Order: sequence, then structure tokens, then C-alpha cells
Amino acid sequence: MGRWEPNARGRLANAALELYRERGYEQTTVAEIAKRAGLTERTFFRHYADKREVLFAGSGELQELFVRGVADAPGSAAPIDALAMGLEAVSGTFADRREYARERQAVIMANAVLQERELIKLASISAALADTLRRRGVAEPAASLTAEAGVAVFKIGFERWILAAEERDMWQLMRESLDELKAVTAGR
Amino acid sequence: MGRWEPNARGRLANAALELYRERGYEQTTVAEIAKRAGLTERTFFRHYADKREVLFAGSGELQELFVRGVADAPGSAAPIDALAMGLEAVSGTFADRREYARERQAVIMANAVLQERELIKLASISAALADTLRRRGVAEPAASLTAEAGVAVFKIGFERWILAAEERDMWQLMRESLDELKAVTAGR
Repeated sequence: MGRWEPNARGRLANAALELYRERGYEQTTVAEIAKRAGLTERTFFRHYADKREVLFAGSGELQELFVRGVADAPGSAAPIDALAMGLEAVSGTFADRREYARERQAVIMANAVLQERELIKLASISAALADTLRRRGVAEPAASLTAEAGVAVFKIGFERWILAAEERDMWQLMRESLDELKAVTAGR
Repeated sequence: MGRWEPNARGRLANAALELYRERGYEQTTVAEIAKRAGLTERTFFRHYADKREVLFAGSGELQELFVRGVADAPGSAAPIDALAMGLEAVSGTFADRREYARERQAVIMANAVLQERELIKLASISAALADTLRRRGVAEPAASLTAEAGVAVFKIGFERWILAAEERDMWQLMRESLDELKAVTAGR
């Protein structure tokens, strides 16, 4: 292990995002990211497997929070209400990261490979949510459908949250998206 | 162009699926697929860009049917009812292809790259459905949420349809999955 670098992980993530925005994701190298962060390539690889994973480092934590929120809902909660608790748990962690999330999304939307990786992330969350709901005693296909609905609400709510002019907090937008899904499935 | 081969496209697709099942997708070459079908590699490449696209050749048609079903719904239909008409249109084309669909799904589930391609296919359908709903005058985020719900119902209904013991037709399973989604979002 090299010498300790204060907040190396966060500095590398910010440097990577800056460079992806300036030069494009494909054109940026790990060497350039490390240099921009004032760190070595070796330090980069202690924190991230490759330049793609810098953008997906939070995926595991996001999934864990979402799943835990659902798992910790009262046993009497309907599946959709347990799901809402997962969305609330997730929303809390994004509070002060809107600008980072906006920049990250712009990078992802500009690159097909990153979009695929994002789809895999969401599919993984859906599978984990379905599993959690089954453990709560929800039968199939209700468990899988609720999980898919949860990921849909998260995805659409997130896209609204990072719109340029949007100032409402994430949980409010998630609630609104969930209410909207309830309205459309009710035929309104 | 070479000489005309009767149903070359279908023969290649069946040969490919057989080989993917026998040897694994990664281990199968285009030369082997052509040979098994009694055709040349040149004929293969007249019909498919590569061995992956044999499995996704129907994606465009599927999306088109789904979209057209939604677009052709009466103007007075609620978004969720227009969506149901898209699901019905899609279900009709799969009627006599259950065995093929089962085999195909087994190949896809055994390979991460194919699963990613499948996710991209579903994301593309969702985007096209959202676009169609907006053209019908459905506002955002209702259009995107209805589209995501439609893809979720299609995905779960499809997975049920190809279960080994399942004999109900696809449209019945799609209807049931849609009803189940309505029930869970209503908090039941």
C-alpha cells in the first residue's frame, strides 16, 4: 500500500467526471484521471477496477439501501408500501449529490456502453427487490411485478430529479412518480 | 447473390439455436451454424450480421407490433388500456413459437452478454412505447411510467408463458400479469 491520500476515492471520482465531460468518456485514460486528481495510477487501481467502474462505484450501496428499506418495512405493509419505504431510504442518500448525478447522467447518456451498464445495474436492483419481496411472503408474479414497478418509479423519478430546473427533493419526486404509476394503472 | 435457398433464414435460426443449446453460445461458430443448416457462411451473412443477431432478429418486428397496437387504440382509451392493446397485438405473433421461445430463453439466461442485449431490446421497446403514448397526448411522467409498466408486464408475462408446465396462451398470461400489476399498485 502507498502512502495515505486524503479522500483519494472522491478526488478520483470528481477528476474522472470532469474529464469525461471535457473530452468524452472514450477519450479519457486512467493516467489522465490520476494526474488530474494529483494521484498515481496505482492509487487509482487501489480504488477502482477500471475507468467505467468509477461511474458505478455507488451501485452496490444503492441496491443495498433500496433492499434494506423494503426488508425493514413493517410486516403488515402491502408490497407497494414496502417498496415506497425502499424508495424513501434511497432518496435520503442522494440529497446533496444532485449536481454530481446530473454530470454523471450526461456522461452515461452520451455512451452506449455506459447505458448498457446502467441497464444491468437496474436489472440487478429489480432482481434483488423481487427476492426481498418473496422473503416477505409476496407470491409470484406479484413480487417481480412490484420490483419492476419499483425500478421504473426510481428510474423516472431520478430522471426528473436531475432535470436542469428541478428543485424539489428526490423523495418528493419519487412519491409523485409512484402516485402517477398508481393513477395510470388505475386507468386514469 | 447466391442461388435461392428455401427458408434459409428459418433453417439458420433453428440450426443456431440447436448448436447454442448443445455446445454453448460462445463455443459455436458461424461456420458450424451454416453447416448444420446445410448452407454456406455467405448465405448466413446475407441473413444475419453475426451469431448474436440470430437470437434478436425478431426484436424489430416485436417492437413495431407493440407500438402499433398502442398507436391504433381508440383515441378515447386510457393509456393503460392502449397498452393492453399493444400486449394483445404482440401475444398473437408468439402463439406457435413457445418451444422456440423456451429454447431461446435458456440460451440467453446462460450468457451475460446475451442478457445485456436482451435488456437493451426491452429498453428500446420502452422508449418507443413512451414516444407513442406522448403522441397520443399522454403527458410526462405518465407516458414513461406506462411504457415501463408495459415492458414489465411483457417481461413477467413472457417468463410465465415459457415455464415448462405452462399451457395457457400468452395473451391470457399478459392479461393476468397486467391485472396483478394493477392489484399491487392499488395496494392489494
